[in-house]
Amino acid sequence: MKRLTVQQFLQEKQNTEQTDSRSLDESVLNIISGVKKEGDSALVHFTEKFDGIRLNQIAVSENEFLEAEKAVGSQFNAALQKARQNITAFHAGQKEQSWFINQMGGITLGQKVTPIERVGVYIPGGKASYPSSVMMNVIPAQLAGVKEIVLTTPPQPDGKISPYVLAAAKEAGVDKVYKVGGAQAIAALAYGTETISRVFKIVGPGNAYVARAKKWVYGDVAIDMIAGPSEICIIADETAEPYFVAADLLSQAEHDEQARPLLITTSRHIAETVQNDISNQIDQLERKTIARQSLEQNGRIILADTLPEAFDTANTIAPEHLQLMIRDPFENLPNITNAGAIFLGNYSPEPLGDYLAGPNHTLPTGGTATFSSPLGVYDFVKKSSVIHYPNDALNHVSEDIISLANAEGLTAHANSIQIRKDEDDA
Amino acid sequence: MKRLTVQQFLQEKQNTEQTDSRSLDESVLNIISGVKKEGDSALVHFTEKFDGIRLNQIAVSENEFLEAEKAVGSQFNAALQKARQNITAFHAGQKEQSWFINQMGGITLGQKVTPIERVGVYIPGGKASYPSSVMMNVIPAQLAGVKEIVLTTPPQPDGKISPYVLAAAKEAGVDKVYKVGGAQAIAALAYGTETISRVFKIVGPGNAYVARAKKWVYGDVAIDMIAGPSEICIIADETAEPYFVAADLLSQAEHDEQARPLLITTSRHIAETVQNDISNQIDQLERKTIARQSLEQNGRIILADTLPEAFDTANTIAPEHLQLMIRDPFENLPNITNAGAIFLGNYSPEPLGDYLAGPNHTLPTGGTATFSSPLGVYDFVKKSSVIHYPNDALNHVSEDIISLANAEGLTAHANSIQIRKDEDDA
Repeated sequence: MKRLTVQQFLQEKQNTEQTDSRSLDESVLNIISGVKKEGDSALVHFTEKFDGIRLNQIAVSENEFLEAEKAVGSQFNAALQKARQNITAFHAGQKEQSWFINQMGGITLGQKVTPIERVGVYIPGGKASYPSSVMMNVIPAQLAGVKEIVLTTPPQPDGKISPYVLAAAKEAGVDKVYKVGGAQAIAALAYGTETISRVFKIVGPGNAYVARAKKWVYGDVAIDMIAGPSEICIIADETAEPYFVAADLLSQAEHDEQARPLLITTSRHIAETVQNDISNQIDQLERKTIARQSLEQNGRIILADTLPEAFDTANTIAPEHLQLMIRDPFENLPNITNAGAIFLGNYSPEPLGDYLAGPNHTLPTGGTATFSSPLGVYDFVKKSSVIHYPNDALNHVSEDIISLANAEGLTAHANSIQIRKDEDDA
Repeated sequence: MKRLTVQQFLQEKQNTEQTDSRSLDESVLNIISGVKKEGDSALVHFTEKFDGIRLNQIAVSENEFLEAEKAVGSQFNAALQKARQNITAFHAGQKEQSWFINQMGGITLGQKVTPIERVGVYIPGGKASYPSSVMMNVIPAQLAGVKEIVLTTPPQPDGKISPYVLAAAKEAGVDKVYKVGGAQAIAALAYGTETISRVFKIVGPGNAYVARAKKWVYGDVAIDMIAGPSEICIIADETAEPYFVAADLLSQAEHDEQARPLLITTSRHIAETVQNDISNQIDQLERKTIARQSLEQNGRIILADTLPEAFDTANTIAPEHLQLMIRDPFENLPNITNAGAIFLGNYSPEPLGDYLAGPNHTLPTGGTATFSSPLGVYDFVKKSSVIHYPNDALNHVSEDIISLANAEGLTAHANSIQIRKDEDDA
């Protein structure tokens, strides 16, 4: 891992330019327009092309669900149920209520909260399987009251879906699962095909094709976010356990080569010990090749002079995951302004949040925690304003409205108020 | 206005295809990359090209603010203050608090709410001026606790900004106003120039260039929405006052030629009378040419057999503004699931909400009320999850986390938990 001062790190951050994605766009746009025109047959075509399997049926059958349930084993099932309980308990706190206020003169104003009607969840496939992402995306939608939740995920080379994903989909209460991945799945969810009804919001992680397709359909349909590589930032002072810090950086690094494990520390001793501990631990990992590449390319150890400087640096990074392995983590919470999830102390490592603690693991990446939030129940509802004025109350403010409308040159707006006033004056 | 049955309307709706925007994209992308490369000098260049004025200074001076304050007059100022009070009172109800829950075993979970640090507001210029949009966009950001709010708006041909807009910016508490419009303003806010610091979120209405530029910068920066033409949908039964209905449809139609005034009625009498009343009222309007074109191209009177059919049709349209001019508007509120703002009764016309009632007038257009909300305080904050487990509590769930991590093939995740357990067992 490269070791830097805060100044050097900020300089390096500024020099990193975004990659041009125009060639990616070309193929993503072709896939989207193919699905818009040809529907299901485009899905079959692209699935054969990209996943190497010719589908007889796009939807997962009831029988496949039953097989999956048997395959996963009771220990996994028990863990899944525990996760479900915790995720439900936390997200229940996010539920929003409609509210109304009454003002003088019989005025009622309000904010009505309504669930989004149909939602699509994308779950990546390929070599890995992500049952935890199923739970994290579906449960908040359920709590919000979404009527129909469908899931798409690319099939394995044998035409099946991971039993872990299917078991999680069943446990979470998904209505339908479709064997489609990539940009073609996003297009199907956004615009609909013979088999897949269009949804109003698409959520869930995915590769570069999926992310780019989500950017393109955004506006025609809502999306959760455009997710980039996963990141962790650990702030450690001399009270941190370096062996834990090393393990947590490695757990981030194993995701993929683009994953970003960052350590900000005020202690030169921690910086050195963590680096040694990483070397000791990495060889025992199954995904050590990936982890090594992630650490070399994107791993950074940043030496800060003081904790306030460490907090400022973290706020500039706005990391997806932030672990505070410092003496007084609670006391320093007000100093953190930009982070997706904040883990406090030596015994709250990121995997606890990834799977089980309850808060969502779908988090803003790539610095977008400066402006966005973890996935939550609030992502699956929308609000409508409600306005009621009786005749007299409207008369009382007529002149003000007319004055503002005229200032904007909108005389028909003024007229809509004036004719009601005239009727009343008559 | 074209008159249709519900069936005919839904058929027509389905056949409406979205226009291709690739040529627009080409010029928008050129503007964005110009601003990224050349900064302020690109802003000066594009402003000369599109607004016909060579700027000496991009920021509005203190003197210009003082002149504006004098120019607008006391009646306008009084109306503006009344609007400010009402908008503040309503939006205060949207403020969110951080919250924490404690679980057995010393576990703390929470959701921390933090304001977005810097926000940019775009206000259209051209022939019209929109002081109301200034108030509607700035006040929620203020209430959210945003530290820095800047505003960009295209200069008039004389190089000045509308005094109404400047007076509203002053009243609302904007930090800086810049004389830049179009895609170049969006690029400057998203990526920064020498004069304009980059922001984390861009809000506010704009023309096709602005909307398209917002789509392109989305992801690098947050945006409120991609706004389309303004719409009204009025549901009227035989208790509606047709003269009011006509005036309200006209107030929508005067916005621009693309504006969509829709009436759904269960009464053939209302359908006919409204059409006559429109003919009678339209000639007295300043913007009658625009209004006539909007009504002819996009105006529709839809005859529904029953009120439930009218509600279903409105929910399918998911209109920006929905007026319920029916016998029991409150009782029927639960039947409305998709709408930006809902206006109840004969004396709550859309202009009341546009200017003064308090709820926001920045609303989802083009059917996006199926998945999005009025602009609100919630748009200017973001959330961070907070997770704290003590040692024992983590041990208690170690096996579950390890089981889930192994099912996903992420052994370094499992290891991050295992080493903490091993230390404890030792």
